[in-house]
Amino acid sequence: MDFDTITTDIPIIGPAKVPSPLRLGEHGEGFVDETERVIIDVNSENVTLAFEGNRPVPSFEKAGPRQRIYFDPSKLRCALVTCGGLCPGLNDIIRASVLELYYGYGVRNIYGIRYGLQGFIPGYSHEVVDLTPEVVVNIAKKGGSFLGSSRGPQDVEQIIDCLERMNIGVLFMIGGDGTLMAASKIADAIDQRGLKISVMGIPKTIDNDIYMVSRSFGFDTAVDVATTAIRAAHNEAEGYPDGIGLIKLMGRHSGFIACTASLSQQDVNFVLIPEVDFDLEGPKGLLASLERRLSARRHAVIVAAEGAGQKMLEKMQKGEQQFDESGNVRLHDIGLFLKDQINQHFAKKGIHISLKYIDPSYIIRSLPANSNDQVFCSFLGRDAVHAALAGKTRMLVSHWNNQFVHVPLSASAGRRKKVNPDGRLWYSVLEATGQNELKNK
Amino acid sequence: MDFDTITTDIPIIGPAKVPSPLRLGEHGEGFVDETERVIIDVNSENVTLAFEGNRPVPSFEKAGPRQRIYFDPSKLRCALVTCGGLCPGLNDIIRASVLELYYGYGVRNIYGIRYGLQGFIPGYSHEVVDLTPEVVVNIAKKGGSFLGSSRGPQDVEQIIDCLERMNIGVLFMIGGDGTLMAASKIADAIDQRGLKISVMGIPKTIDNDIYMVSRSFGFDTAVDVATTAIRAAHNEAEGYPDGIGLIKLMGRHSGFIACTASLSQQDVNFVLIPEVDFDLEGPKGLLASLERRLSARRHAVIVAAEGAGQKMLEKMQKGEQQFDESGNVRLHDIGLFLKDQINQHFAKKGIHISLKYIDPSYIIRSLPANSNDQVFCSFLGRDAVHAALAGKTRMLVSHWNNQFVHVPLSASAGRRKKVNPDGRLWYSVLEATGQNELKNK
Amino acid sequence: MDFDTITTDIPIIGPAKVPSPLRLGEHGEGFVDETERVIIDVNSENVTLAFEGNRPVPSFEKAGPRQRIYFDPSKLRCALVTCGGLCPGLNDIIRASVLELYYGYGVRNIYGIRYGLQGFIPGYSHEVVDLTPEVVVNIAKKGGSFLGSSRGPQDVEQIIDCLERMNIGVLFMIGGDGTLMAASKIADAIDQRGLKISVMGIPKTIDNDIYMVSRSFGFDTAVDVATTAIRAAHNEAEGYPDGIGLIKLMGRHSGFIACTASLSQQDVNFVLIPEVDFDLEGPKGLLASLERRLSARRHAVIVAAEGAGQKMLEKMQKGEQQFDESGNVRLHDIGLFLKDQINQHFAKKGIHISLKYIDPSYIIRSLPANSNDQVFCSFLGRDAVHAALAGKTRMLVSHWNNQFVHVPLSASAGRRKKVNPDGRLWYSVLEATGQNELKNK
Amino acid sequence: MDFDTITTDIPIIGPAKVPSPLRLGEHGEGFVDETERVIIDVNSENVTLAFEGNRPVPSFEKAGPRQRIYFDPSKLRCALVTCGGLCPGLNDIIRASVLELYYGYGVRNIYGIRYGLQGFIPGYSHEVVDLTPEVVVNIAKKGGSFLGSSRGPQDVEQIIDCLERMNIGVLFMIGGDGTLMAASKIADAIDQRGLKISVMGIPKTIDNDIYMVSRSFGFDTAVDVATTAIRAAHNEAEGYPDGIGLIKLMGRHSGFIACTASLSQQDVNFVLIPEVDFDLEGPKGLLASLERRLSARRHAVIVAAEGAGQKMLEKMQKGEQQFDESGNVRLHDIGLFLKDQINQHFAKKGIHISLKYIDPSYIIRSLPANSNDQVFCSFLGRDAVHAALAGKTRMLVSHWNNQFVHVPLSASAGRRKKVNPDGRLWYSVLEATGQNELKNK
Repeated sequence: MDFDTITTDIPIIGPAKVPSPLRLGEHGEGFVDETERVIIDVNSENVTLAFEGNRPVPSFEKAGPRQRIYFDPSKLRCALVTCGGLCPGLNDIIRASVLELYYGYGVRNIYGIRYGLQGFIPGYSHEVVDLTPEVVVNIAKKGGSFLGSSRGPQDVEQIIDCLERMNIGVLFMIGGDGTLMAASKIADAIDQRGLKISVMGIPKTIDNDIYMVSRSFGFDTAVDVATTAIRAAHNEAEGYPDGIGLIKLMGRHSGFIACTASLSQQDVNFVLIPEVDFDLEGPKGLLASLERRLSARRHAVIVAAEGAGQKMLEKMQKGEQQFDESGNVRLHDIGLFLKDQINQHFAKKGIHISLKYIDPSYIIRSLPANSNDQVFCSFLGRDAVHAALAGKTRMLVSHWNNQFVHVPLSASAGRRKKVNPDGRLWYSVLEATGQNELKNK
Repeated sequence: MDFDTITTDIPIIGPAKVPSPLRLGEHGEGFVDETERVIIDVNSENVTLAFEGNRPVPSFEKAGPRQRIYFDPSKLRCALVTCGGLCPGLNDIIRASVLELYYGYGVRNIYGIRYGLQGFIPGYSHEVVDLTPEVVVNIAKKGGSFLGSSRGPQDVEQIIDCLERMNIGVLFMIGGDGTLMAASKIADAIDQRGLKISVMGIPKTIDNDIYMVSRSFGFDTAVDVATTAIRAAHNEAEGYPDGIGLIKLMGRHSGFIACTASLSQQDVNFVLIPEVDFDLEGPKGLLASLERRLSARRHAVIVAAEGAGQKMLEKMQKGEQQFDESGNVRLHDIGLFLKDQINQHFAKKGIHISLKYIDPSYIIRSLPANSNDQVFCSFLGRDAVHAALAGKTRMLVSHWNNQFVHVPLSASAGRRKKVNPDGRLWYSVLEATGQNELKNK
Repeated sequence: MDFDTITTDIPIIGPAKVPSPLRLGEHGEGFVDETERVIIDVNSENVTLAFEGNRPVPSFEKAGPRQRIYFDPSKLRCALVTCGGLCPGLNDIIRASVLELYYGYGVRNIYGIRYGLQGFIPGYSHEVVDLTPEVVVNIAKKGGSFLGSSRGPQDVEQIIDCLERMNIGVLFMIGGDGTLMAASKIADAIDQRGLKISVMGIPKTIDNDIYMVSRSFGFDTAVDVATTAIRAAHNEAEGYPDGIGLIKLMGRHSGFIACTASLSQQDVNFVLIPEVDFDLEGPKGLLASLERRLSARRHAVIVAAEGAGQKMLEKMQKGEQQFDESGNVRLHDIGLFLKDQINQHFAKKGIHISLKYIDPSYIIRSLPANSNDQVFCSFLGRDAVHAALAGKTRMLVSHWNNQFVHVPLSASAGRRKKVNPDGRLWYSVLEATGQNELKNK
Repeated sequence: MDFDTITTDIPIIGPAKVPSPLRLGEHGEGFVDETERVIIDVNSENVTLAFEGNRPVPSFEKAGPRQRIYFDPSKLRCALVTCGGLCPGLNDIIRASVLELYYGYGVRNIYGIRYGLQGFIPGYSHEVVDLTPEVVVNIAKKGGSFLGSSRGPQDVEQIIDCLERMNIGVLFMIGGDGTLMAASKIADAIDQRGLKISVMGIPKTIDNDIYMVSRSFGFDTAVDVATTAIRAAHNEAEGYPDGIGLIKLMGRHSGFIACTASLSQQDVNFVLIPEVDFDLEGPKGLLASLERRLSARRHAVIVAAEGAGQKMLEKMQKGEQQFDESGNVRLHDIGLFLKDQINQHFAKKGIHISLKYIDPSYIIRSLPANSNDQVFCSFLGRDAVHAALAGKTRMLVSHWNNQFVHVPLSASAGRRKKVNPDGRLWYSVLEATGQNELKNK
């Protein structure tokens, strides 16, 4: 990643002059100073080069409570909204934010917007939820989103109208890449109207692929549950002669879940991810490799990220028109596609296989967060509150080099984190699976 | 169930004259006497009627160790085989049987047949596994079948040839209805050859639908995991406006898993099972009922046993020929069928819904057994050994009226336990879901 | 158990004349007739003997909804109270009862009494909780008791005063042996005042030791969690040379949890329960047996029910006065006592052991119920409501011969179910552990 | 932490001249270059100051496979040993190391030393275990240590004798601070004998307190299980009037588990750790604060790290001689001490409380690792192998700034990581608990 070009300054909606009501040490030892920053690139050589070249070493603002804040908590009204697909930890974020706002800063007007951005639009008639400690204290046990969610954009002006009507000072938006881009547009429109509303992003992506965010909440839980599915697939594969367990895991554009879950039990033989091309046919292709594996060991486990092999699917669709009438959806689903291709391949060869296909995606994303993610969410939610109360805006709360930091929306939105095909994660997968490059050249 | 016609006598391959090597109490208090029987029908009125009519009260032999056995353990050779689909607890059964044979009776030659009945057939070249305490002690943690399995029948004569060659005295067959029917045929062929081989069945059906078996192993674990899937579906449903969670659960001919899992969290709104017909269209049909539910509560959860609505699927296939080219498989899958029908219904009405479909079957059946099933399997496995060593054959070990009993294969094979549409289980489901009869007349 | 002397008639507070509002089948197929009974003793021989002797075959009323009920639901006011120790499933019982009362029968006034019987006594000032579906729908995920509990008796007259003041028609009491005896006294006092209040018991005992109740809720969950503790103890034992894992499990008067949990993983070597005496010293005593086990296998796992060896503890206390000042509590705790004795024994012999002591009791009893127990609780709670609405009183809802039945308080209270030292469960434990009788004579 | 004084150079036992047998990319893209380093302190200001002062920016070697290695894998013999207390993930480390040695590098002679350092000493007669992929493939499911462990030092010369006899080239030592200090001594003795043996440390501490190691394996699993114990304690506390749940968690010298687990469910009211002093008596002491909490909310949850309040315990012991005869062990146990003090305090005041004490330590440390820790262990184990094969010695594999790095033993051994009483973690705990400083001045 080319870190030098990253913007790291956090926009503010006004100067922080109000003393924080938080009691953090006799002399305020628990506050984070605005000058505290975390350098982005820990590669020693790059740091040295920067200094030798008299270039600044890029760094992010450290997250945490500030001694002086912008808003008057007694008058502040906040809104929270969760957008896009479900993800373990949504309710933990909501709970942590509300508890910090309420008990930490004394904010008494906290509103939950129902069903994502739809909740702002009068036409949908979704009610607003009053968020108090009593309401949120037990929601984390349940999974899903306490506020509900929805997909897709909504009219920005109507959203701002709603924020104005409700007299909101901080809007917390918990969502993925699309949501963060919507957050930018909302912040633009807020500026145009000359309003003083902080737009605070909390990055949500179960795929763990948000740029400049080393870890996103829910990912750890997802790997946990995915591991159970892989274990099941492994048992199914071992349970029958020439048994194959095929699991599709989440990951539209990046294979972090597929790679990481495969490293857990280490009983996967092939991992297919969007970042690494593979061939189906040919001597080094997946089908021939799979055949060799079966002949040697009588069983095999394949993990495919949902975005793997998409080019191949698109190509086939165009070239083989007769497939069109069977419906696009089926063709684009790498799991069902591989299931068909593998079954056909071995049927043609007269080899009886037993293929079991598992797609655990909806089970994974809607379950409660594990303890690790719960702790992580508690920091994310509280740090979003600290940043917003201090008057920061157009930013997201991120985890970077093992620290919580502030990242401007402009540095992250529109780009994506990917598995490096020449990096440690992917090579570890290759070692753990014993899988060779599945390319014919 | 018409209990009067049930055969309850257990065939033996010879008289039990050898003193059992088990030490069960100073005076053998731990042994079960051959006269101990468990009455089948606990309905007080039926028992009285039987006596008043001078008819015998039908009863099953109680399972457990006998003071005298048929086989000489030092010379006995046993074989175990697991057939059909995976089921939580297979490895616990294997472990319990081997431990009892080895430590209890001192049998030293115990063989595991690989990959179901295939393992008997020379053409497949599956090796045989020596089963010792060391080999089996840790297999229960893994799930799946340690021996592997396969589906479908194999040539009975080749199986007997193999048993003869290996000089097997007891064959333990762990499998479902098909396996138990195969067991009958194998026992017939054994008789025809005049061999002294006990055929001992251990009923395996994750659907819990074996006749005269009130509970089968793995069922409890299946309900446990199914509950997690339902919870996920519920979160997905609540997470979006007009959200629908649709879960397909195992149950080809009987809806025990669907009914029982729906009673656990009590957040299911519609349960569809093979035993109870339902309409899709019409004012009382599923689609209209679902629409009413959504309009009232904005979300709904549907659980469908895989065998539900099969007649409807078959009818549609014949009547609507244009469906044929889409493939039979898709049409026969009630889950995908309902997903399509529901999506089409609301699309036609211009109602935007968010339907999430979850099929957890392969995850459920291949996981390790929970503690409850482990304990249950430990009794089943040990009681199968006790019965076989005592010279009993052509029977299965069953659980009935809270006791372990011996049921002749002839009393169970070929029939099936079903959810009674006028019984407590189904009415409890109706109460818990609030679902009315989904029939238009 | 001597079943002939058991009273099985259920007292009523008045004739059931009101038609049930439940819709259970077109022709009421889902209702249970008052004549339906479940015979108590399924031993075939005993049944025959009874008939031959012209003695009645004892049977229990079958539980379930009745076509006619006693109370007018629109006017009925109900109270629920949970007493004694926590137990997995308490909240499921509360939820199921409230849902059935509210949705099934249309009862709108349901009150939760806080903190057990204390909640009736004005002096404690515990508020009463309004129980509605909204309030109870999510409580089952949490564990513990939503209403709170307390130990010990309270003044019966003050309890009745409270019931009168609140105009309660049905009191659901969820508790153990002590609570059921209190229920009897409360019912007596109600009679003396000539009130029409049904007292309905739901037996709660994590130890599974209530008389005439084959299974009590929470037991299955307890075994599940206990198994995890045993697995930990086993790993600790195997992890060190001459390692010993010692686990104390619940079971003051009966060893059901200890026995059943030991059958799950089958890695326990010694099980100590209240029903079976054992010696510590002497050639066949626990210490010598343990020493032999260590010398043969280098590790050992011991499970002790909390009520095991109590006589030994009492005896030691009297004989060795110097122990008195160390406190009675410590002496009566079999876990700590065994830990000391074992450590001293091997220290004296100069053998270095590594003993790890685990007491998981409070973790076990306060966790949420597993799916199996949840389903069980849903039946118990609903059947208690059915029975009470039908005007039955002074009874408890029980599970017997795999059916839910009504048992008069007088048949159960004051007696206790115990592990039979000559029965299948205990002999299975002996087989699974390989443990001999630990008595020197 | 004063990073400037840290030694970061990794000793080697010889130059790496042998080409690595690993295939990592066409052009070796998967190898890590010896010049790749990770800067230690990501504080932007400190980095700038270093450069302005012309001081080097301290950095650690990046872990990972090297293109050239020191040992000839075909001749290399390796030994693994696990020391000290059990910790989730031990078996994952063993498995990952063996798989990498065997499949990655082709090492065929890998030996497991039984029961910690005892296994080297002839007097104990512990056998050595041949470690092959078949032996280790399933050990991770079990928890504990497959090799066994023991505490305490052993004679270094005898250890070296054994290594020489076995002709070991690499010794992998998995253990805590004591083990790493032993590793240093062993390395010294190896040097004195002029042997070429690499000593490779893998830091194990469930407390997460090893210096210069930001995360140690097993910690995440420990927090997971500790959370369950806290949930139980919370249910017990809420379940009774004036209920108190008291949990003792691991943490002799640092409170990371106590702090982190308390942030997960956020239902803890008091966290006591070794790093932060507290008073028991006095207006701001624990007892008075607890009393205020109970009076306001009727329940409280207290988490105490085992090393909390030790000074207080020591002081009491000296001052109140009569306590001596009750045994030091009991006095030093903060959990039992607090239990007594709290019970006495409220008894004196005539307030009836219900205190439940939970000590889950042995359950936590002996369970299998969760998925997150499994993945982490797989990297640790493989990176230890990469480093050792490259000829590095006297180092440990660490995780720092989200990267795996090499840390010299000399930089870590003898120091300890602690919770910073003025840092984010502790202040987050204070916010989550609402607990004030428990000091009277």
